[in-house]
Amino acid sequence: MSGLTIWTYDWVPEGPRGFVRDLRLRWACEEAGLRYAVRTIAFEDRETNHLAHQPFGQIPFLQDEEVEIFESGACLLYLARKSDTLMPRDSKGEAQTLQWTIAALNSIEMVTVPWWFLKVFGDENADLAGWMGKRLGQLERVLSEREWLAAGRFSVADLLMADVLRVSKVRAFGDRPATEAYVKRVTDRAAFKKAQAAQIGHFEAADRKRKEERPH
Amino acid sequence: MSGLTIWTYDWVPEGPRGFVRDLRLRWACEEAGLRYAVRTIAFEDRETNHLAHQPFGQIPFLQDEEVEIFESGACLLYLARKSDTLMPRDSKGEAQTLQWTIAALNSIEMVTVPWWFLKVFGDENADLAGWMGKRLGQLERVLSEREWLAAGRFSVADLLMADVLRVSKVRAFGDRPATEAYVKRVTDRAAFKKAQAAQIGHFEAADRKRKEERPH
Repeated sequence: MSGLTIWTYDWVPEGPRGFVRDLRLRWACEEAGLRYAVRTIAFEDRETNHLAHQPFGQIPFLQDEEVEIFESGACLLYLARKSDTLMPRDSKGEAQTLQWTIAALNSIEMVTVPWWFLKVFGDENADLAGWMGKRLGQLERVLSEREWLAAGRFSVADLLMADVLRVSKVRAFGDRPATEAYVKRVTDRAAFKKAQAAQIGHFEAADRKRKEERPH
Repeated sequence: MSGLTIWTYDWVPEGPRGFVRDLRLRWACEEAGLRYAVRTIAFEDRETNHLAHQPFGQIPFLQDEEVEIFESGACLLYLARKSDTLMPRDSKGEAQTLQWTIAALNSIEMVTVPWWFLKVFGDENADLAGWMGKRLGQLERVLSEREWLAAGRFSVADLLMADVLRVSKVRAFGDRPATEAYVKRVTDRAAFKKAQAAQIGHFEAADRKRKEERPH
């Protein structure tokens, strides 16, 4: 048994359930058959209660015996070293997995997250939407020619890219059939479904506990 | 001699010279003592002339014998495997280097680049500025307590984070003395100066050549 612990919040509102980023780590562990425990920090004072573990006040972070690591993308690359299921071991396959993992973080999410962030503030920013449309169009071209991003097989790069793309507002942006088929293909995997159900279950259980503890 | 080739543009306008992202790769090679060649694609039709090598139409990308890899962050992590100078080899040090490299790409640059992008369009976006101020403040707290991000020593995480932070508009944003000292510390390194001079020299030579070829 491994000593992996995934840290997440003790509770979140209903909206983000099924999308909180500990899901990326749960999913990777399920793909790789790595056992893990889940521990929590309090959602309420999250911006200050775990800065020693995550200096931006976010989750997830991962513990593996004496190693501790934050940033979901870094945790995924760390976990990928443990399992061929997440990353091929040949130098070409590994380089392709690495480049597409970083592309998800720095070419796609760099545009989708700020676009979504402004949208939440009611700002339908045309410049960011134009930039995002261009990037997603370039990705659509790639995905219309292959099933998986790296090395002709599923890897942690697909896990991350699909997680970035499955956000409902991003998914609804434009008509991109190859991307839509790709997101379905990746999130149809049993490991994703198991990880997502486990996360939703974790937060729903917290909800029930809160209600029970509420004074009558 | 290694077979490393860094691909960049044949020419860029004066503004971005010294900041084009092939610099990150040149700098890493200089730190690690890795020999490299520089080859170019045409700036003019850059959005379509190398999509087989870089599907977002950007540079740099790196060739290493039969391996080819794009995304500057991915190239840096790839190069880091070749040299202890770029990344410590113990599991804790490696995890710290990885997490801070990803933090530069996905927690800091994810905010600074869209903020700068909108600023170029004349949009002084207050929501993005607020978000950026928060992230840069969190980073300032970290940098006020340590000289290097990972493992108590210089690593590729510092190279990347300093390159993200040294952009003049980001540097001028707010009063962050520890961050400013950090950027100076990292960019005072001989390898940075050599790489930057080489990049500027590369583009200036292209400029002279263009002028010579211009009909009189």
